[in-house]
Amino acid sequence: MSRTVRLAAIPGDGIGPEVVAEALKVLEVAVGDEATFEVTEFHLGAGRYLETGDILTDDDLAAVASHDAILLGAVGGDPRDPRLRGGIIERGLLLRLRFALDHYVNLRPTTVYPGVPSPLADPGEVDFVVVREGTEGPYVGNGGALRQGTPHEIANEVSVNTAYGVERVVRFAFEKAQSRRGRLTLVHKTNVLVFAGGLWQRTVDAVATEYPDVAVDYQHVDAATIHLVVDPSRFDVIVTDNLFGDILTDLAGAISGGIGLAASGNINPDGAFPSMFEPVHGSAPDIAGQQKADPTAAILSVSLLLDHLGLPEAAARVTAAVEGDIADRATRASSADPRGTSEIGSAIADRVRAS
Amino acid sequence: MSRTVRLAAIPGDGIGPEVVAEALKVLEVAVGDEATFEVTEFHLGAGRYLETGDILTDDDLAAVASHDAILLGAVGGDPRDPRLRGGIIERGLLLRLRFALDHYVNLRPTTVYPGVPSPLADPGEVDFVVVREGTEGPYVGNGGALRQGTPHEIANEVSVNTAYGVERVVRFAFEKAQSRRGRLTLVHKTNVLVFAGGLWQRTVDAVATEYPDVAVDYQHVDAATIHLVVDPSRFDVIVTDNLFGDILTDLAGAISGGIGLAASGNINPDGAFPSMFEPVHGSAPDIAGQQKADPTAAILSVSLLLDHLGLPEAAARVTAAVEGDIADRATRASSADPRGTSEIGSAIADRVRAS
Ligand SMILES: CC(C)[C@H](C(=O)O)[C@@H](O)C(=O)O
Ligand SMILES: CC(C)[C@H](C(=O)O)[C@@H](O)C(=O)O
Repeated sequence: MSRTVRLAAIPGDGIGPEVVAEALKVLEVAVGDEATFEVTEFHLGAGRYLETGDILTDDDLAAVASHDAILLGAVGGDPRDPRLRGGIIERGLLLRLRFALDHYVNLRPTTVYPGVPSPLADPGEVDFVVVREGTEGPYVGNGGALRQGTPHEIANEVSVNTAYGVERVVRFAFEKAQSRRGRLTLVHKTNVLVFAGGLWQRTVDAVATEYPDVAVDYQHVDAATIHLVVDPSRFDVIVTDNLFGDILTDLAGAISGGIGLAASGNINPDGAFPSMFEPVHGSAPDIAGQQKADPTAAILSVSLLLDHLGLPEAAARVTAAVEGDIADRATRASSADPRGTSEIGSAIADRVRAS
Repeated sequence: MSRTVRLAAIPGDGIGPEVVAEALKVLEVAVGDEATFEVTEFHLGAGRYLETGDILTDDDLAAVASHDAILLGAVGGDPRDPRLRGGIIERGLLLRLRFALDHYVNLRPTTVYPGVPSPLADPGEVDFVVVREGTEGPYVGNGGALRQGTPHEIANEVSVNTAYGVERVVRFAFEKAQSRRGRLTLVHKTNVLVFAGGLWQRTVDAVATEYPDVAVDYQHVDAATIHLVVDPSRFDVIVTDNLFGDILTDLAGAISGGIGLAASGNINPDGAFPSMFEPVHGSAPDIAGQQKADPTAAILSVSLLLDHLGLPEAAARVTAAVEGDIADRATRASSADPRGTSEIGSAIADRVRAS
């Protein structure tokens, strides 16, 4: 009897619904008889907020949390809309889910697929993953202001880091490195952020003694951006804090041929809460509804989701189909993919079916 | 009668002394009779600290501060030396000077010189400057830890931002944009760091009304790294906080053909304290004393210094000589410059002399 997986789908705003539709199309084909996915759609995002005033109610959260996994498209409305200022949707929905569901691992793989044009002249063989901490650091929302709006305003942001929080994500990163090429790079800014950086460095040093087969090094975040551009093939696993991980993974997406290919998993490795999979790209409201979005990042997020759910063969079928499709793109006339969103999704689904 | 400028030179550690020697060589030739530079050398850095236990005494600081300007090579010893952990030299010397001398503008121009190999396949015409705030943000040293070294450790870092501090650097950036191509990009992370980001955004919005001829836009720091790699020619002036500026300027150095060309000024525009000019690169102890370092970034820092001191013709002579030298490099056999540090310095000095 085939296993049933209850999946919460949050298509979201902008191009989110378009790419999620393709991701679900591929998911269905990929799992075949191995599992039955029961998909519940949640209408959440800027659109819903502007209609109803709700971002993520406690009931919404409880309903989402009762699923086995989450697939999210993209959330966020028109960035110039004053009603959406201050990241109200991003914080109230995306970050709230990451924090409430204890997604302490934000997993972001970067591969330069053969045939994909990179902005780098010579990227080399790029295949690394960033393990970004997801529940601490400057993202905790512990900021405040005094005398706001006056010439004497002071605005503070507090980065909070705990031994508990750092150790668990560092352990995950060591495990990851061990299952890959055995190299781990800690990225931080220990020469300036001495307390947070010191905790990260000491934790990595301590856990490293349990993984003698993993080679560990360290880079300041500023230097890491140089290495990502000059010699990205040196990296295997990068472990870093929430904010540095945010910055480095956008850069990683760019060098690997565009954020249109970058997938991510917000993972609770303990399994206490459902993990959430999403493309790294945003909602791109300017091209929404025009079948212009590339669904590949959402489809690769499905591969991460399948892997996480213990369906590695199905995951591998998705990744292989995407690789095949990408290899074919190089032979197309222009470097921009002339196919529409659902054409790309169907092409990848067909490849999965044929595999 | 020619004007006398009292210059404090801090050669520092590693390759610092080598590149400062070349920078002073070029400075001397460039100013000719326009000014007399009286140079006082200060023995400061990791080397001095390991010898004497002093990093920057109050007397040192007062002595340096009594000069008209400062030229710094690089500071910092062997990164694996446990006696230098936690950025003790960087914070005790470099950051202490920036903070004590109120260097609230950290000015970092980026140009892709014709002929310089960039890691980007097609960088386009890149010519922008980053105006990095230099005295606030996560650099203020307001961190702390509780239960350090235990499983219950909490390590915090506080980013402090004031209306006073943000407004003055934003005004400088608008002036800069007005004197250039009239485009200003604020980079921050307003959707997560809502208090600090809100202050920056409101300040830019307010000052913008006084500069109707400057076109203003905004990018999140993660997205900015993508644009720097995919389309760096779009930028004219970037204004950003201390930490984001640190990250973006290393990336900018990398895309423009290497941190070996990136110059910077730590400027106190009010003139209350001497400004300090330094290459963006570090002390590179692994190649120190081998005449392998490229002194170009230090020499370009001299150009910024001359500009700041009101000697724009001399500054222009230095920049033109560097450009000429760089253009010549493209015709050399290998992409690595086969000349030694002082050969490059002399070649640039000769060009200045001939101009
Ligand atoms: C939308 C935003 C809050 C989010 C983040 O900063 O984490 C995004 O940039 C990401 O990387 O997933
Ligand atoms: C050495 C370090 C403290 C410094 C900084 O972070 O500002 C350096 O990276 C720089 O950019 O000048």
